[in-house]
Amino acid sequence: MPHIALNSDEPGIRGLLRYRPETGRPLSDLAEVLMRGPGTLTRGERELIAAYVSGLNDCQYCTSSHSACAAAQLPGGMALVEQVRADAASAPVSGKLKALLAIASAVRRSGRDVQEQDVAAARAAGATDPEIHDTVLIAAVFCMFNRYVDGLGAITPDDPALYAAGAQRLIQDGYLPPPARPASS
Amino acid sequence: MPHIALNSDEPGIRGLLRYRPETGRPLSDLAEVLMRGPGTLTRGERELIAAYVSGLNDCQYCTSSHSACAAAQLPGGMALVEQVRADAASAPVSGKLKALLAIASAVRRSGRDVQEQDVAAARAAGATDPEIHDTVLIAAVFCMFNRYVDGLGAITPDDPALYAAGAQRLIQDGYLPPPARPASS
Repeated sequence: MPHIALNSDEPGIRGLLRYRPETGRPLSDLAEVLMRGPGTLTRGERELIAAYVSGLNDCQYCTSSHSACAAAQLPGGMALVEQVRADAASAPVSGKLKALLAIASAVRRSGRDVQEQDVAAARAAGATDPEIHDTVLIAAVFCMFNRYVDGLGAITPDDPALYAAGAQRLIQDGYLPPPARPASS
Repeated sequence: MPHIALNSDEPGIRGLLRYRPETGRPLSDLAEVLMRGPGTLTRGERELIAAYVSGLNDCQYCTSSHSACAAAQLPGGMALVEQVRADAASAPVSGKLKALLAIASAVRRSGRDVQEQDVAAARAAGATDPEIHDTVLIAAVFCMFNRYVDGLGAITPDDPALYAAGAQRLIQDGYLPPPARPASS
């Protein structure tokens, strides 16, 4: 049960964005551009980083939500997401993605834990500066979302089917709330 | 030295917002509404929460920057900020602010660490639901900014005078980048 009286029964972050639209709008804008905007990391890879960090932070809502989003957009599906979450270093992903996941894991502990050699390893595996930037920011942003959701005790459904359906909506419509999205005529 | 090649020598978060304006804009919008928009926590109190969390996260740039901002907007000045950072429970702030700082400290560790009794204590001390919401979000947002700044090794000046001058600019002009601010004619 949420720690404060929300104005809807929407689960997770959605209930919080609706409760306080003044902050909800820039948070949605941020998620949209970072997770779906132009960039050389695929949307599936970005969602995988989000799911991985959320899992390490033990945030059930965000982990379920972004695992479903990643699974729906990566050839390896949920099996791959679960392998990465269980042990990123041995999961069947590219060397570049492994190095970026290691950076994300360090950021999750503390920004100060990112070492020059972590960044050098990512660069040696083919990561560009914008990819390293976006990985650090995705990890940092989910350290925020995880704390926001759990810190207010947001509603967290158990049913995986709900998260799978939510992932399809996110993939189709994105992170912006409906009234803010340009008409799609 | 930053882990990636930035496109300016601006310190801290400012260099990162400039490097990637697509994400910089919603991040600035978020800071502006959360730290300076309408609300019953004073701007000084919000900056104090930001400085407190940033200190606990050991992020020198954000701690110095938001301590200066808080000090310039609170009657107790930097002495009060330093007392809160050293031991919030014994600092001469209101019972409500103490309870909100305790929530912020829990959020910083993990959203899951916020207990129902922490929220009840804040409410008993006079905190409203929107104040509890904003405290959780400020703490979560600075867990993001701290990791973004340190995770990319952003430039961190030592000179306190630079942070004091930056605080005066923030207090006067806000968090939005100049071109994005409406004309003030």
